[in-house]
Amino acid sequence: MTYAIAIHGGAGVIPKSMPEEKRQEYVDSLERALRLGRDLLRGGGASLDAVEAVVRFLEDDPRFNAGKGAVFTHEGGHELDAAIMDGRTLACGAVAGVRTVKNPVALARLVMERTPHVLLAGEGADRFAAEMSVERVRQSYFSTPHRYRQWQEALKKKRAEKLPGDQGTVGAVARDLHGDLAAATSTGGTTDKRSGRVGDSPLIGAGTYANNRTCAVSGTGAGEEFIRNAAAHDVSALMEYRGLGVREAAETVVLRRLKPGDGGLIAVAADGTIAMVFNSAGMFRGAADSCGRFEVAIWE
Amino acid sequence: MTYAIAIHGGAGVIPKSMPEEKRQEYVDSLERALRLGRDLLRGGGASLDAVEAVVRFLEDDPRFNAGKGAVFTHEGGHELDAAIMDGRTLACGAVAGVRTVKNPVALARLVMERTPHVLLAGEGADRFAAEMSVERVRQSYFSTPHRYRQWQEALKKKRAEKLPGDQGTVGAVARDLHGDLAAATSTGGTTDKRSGRVGDSPLIGAGTYANNRTCAVSGTGAGEEFIRNAAAHDVSALMEYRGLGVREAAETVVLRRLKPGDGGLIAVAADGTIAMVFNSAGMFRGAADSCGRFEVAIWE
Repeated sequence: MTYAIAIHGGAGVIPKSMPEEKRQEYVDSLERALRLGRDLLRGGGASLDAVEAVVRFLEDDPRFNAGKGAVFTHEGGHELDAAIMDGRTLACGAVAGVRTVKNPVALARLVMERTPHVLLAGEGADRFAAEMSVERVRQSYFSTPHRYRQWQEALKKKRAEKLPGDQGTVGAVARDLHGDLAAATSTGGTTDKRSGRVGDSPLIGAGTYANNRTCAVSGTGAGEEFIRNAAAHDVSALMEYRGLGVREAAETVVLRRLKPGDGGLIAVAADGTIAMVFNSAGMFRGAADSCGRFEVAIWE
Repeated sequence: MTYAIAIHGGAGVIPKSMPEEKRQEYVDSLERALRLGRDLLRGGGASLDAVEAVVRFLEDDPRFNAGKGAVFTHEGGHELDAAIMDGRTLACGAVAGVRTVKNPVALARLVMERTPHVLLAGEGADRFAAEMSVERVRQSYFSTPHRYRQWQEALKKKRAEKLPGDQGTVGAVARDLHGDLAAATSTGGTTDKRSGRVGDSPLIGAGTYANNRTCAVSGTGAGEEFIRNAAAHDVSALMEYRGLGVREAAETVVLRRLKPGDGGLIAVAADGTIAMVFNSAGMFRGAADSCGRFEVAIWE
């Protein structure tokens, strides 16, 4: 295997009754994202550049809960989280609760490359974006009618009735021609979340991890469960310390550590093997590699 | 072993030339904190209550970089981080970048017990504090002349000259009479940090972790290195997946994963064995257990 990439657009309760036209739109978008990453890798590009490019593409697609199309907070705004990690060096960067950045994953990469820090949160992250001259937008840029309706419905329900997580977090993991691994994840979080809530996506070891010795991982689902289980790092640890393959390690975390319905994750091993495992009704996902694999799927 | 507790008050460049009077003040404070936790455990108290009480005590002590005595940010303010975790259930709570809360560890516990979330950051965390009616203070409460001088010196230096981390993060890990583990960590971060920077202390799996199956861990030092190595969860994973004892696991992470000078961590295993390992010039620390051990130390 010389290169391999897997992507996701969120896990959760994705109704199989989805209209065919809508299903096709998701499939088309996932295929375009996958092709973008695959072509970068095939041309000798770095896995870090491929996962960033794919996640940026999905952030710009209003269908997914990241960048444009992010869910609403309880207060009616948008607070975005993202992380990126380089498996060669364990270098990583992340942002949480940014409000004005069009592509949070690009800001996460700048945190990695231009600061001595890993995670910048809240106003400090938006100020860093201003210094770096990344593209900034008004909060209304992120809003879509679909997410607005979801928020209005959430406001009517009691907290206990709510489903854990909101489908649409996006992520990518890749192994490039040089054998280097990288992972990236981006999300708007959960509908009607309390302002300031940070989920697993921007937390290294929880929703995002990459280490050339083992694998690159991006998770999606009930973020708090991924955090308390250190899910992304656990996949890596099961490979490194127990000698599991990436599929067995991913299944152990998703099917035995997490609870049914919590979500899923994608992972790629140092040898290019891909795992895509979920315990929810569905997960928007895709996988491609140098052996000619190129496929996207939503349900089993 | 029926109960055991370890505490720390930060690792880093602690000069052995410290005046005897000052050294004695640190020792006295660590002994009082340790006695407070030990007595709670001896009386049948829960490990979760013991680690919270110890960390609150150290937050109130201006000698340590947590609560009163926290370091200054680049902007001249204070932004505090804390986490707490219950090894029985993996329940956990954390806050990052709070500015108005006297005892951040107590707010972290409320995030754990009163919200469906794990981590609240920035203004959202301070708003949650207001709702919960926890004790709030002005920013000036946290300031001390010592930390002000440190900040002024840092402002004069170039970024590259700065030491990684600032000694004084506090933490505690405990195993109670019921066999339950808990961990808590609290910090003001690094002197002259960029506003919004979140270190490892409030990140579950990085600076804080607890799992009854393995151990409870609290770290201190160069936070970004703890994050990229998922240091606290790695200790747990080495025990669970490779069968190492807590001391061997802690040494593997501190002496082989982290770099010399990065800092250290304290850990207690499910059987009550304590590990306190550091790769810096010193670590303020203490350990006590039901076999009569009661000791504090700063250097080797």
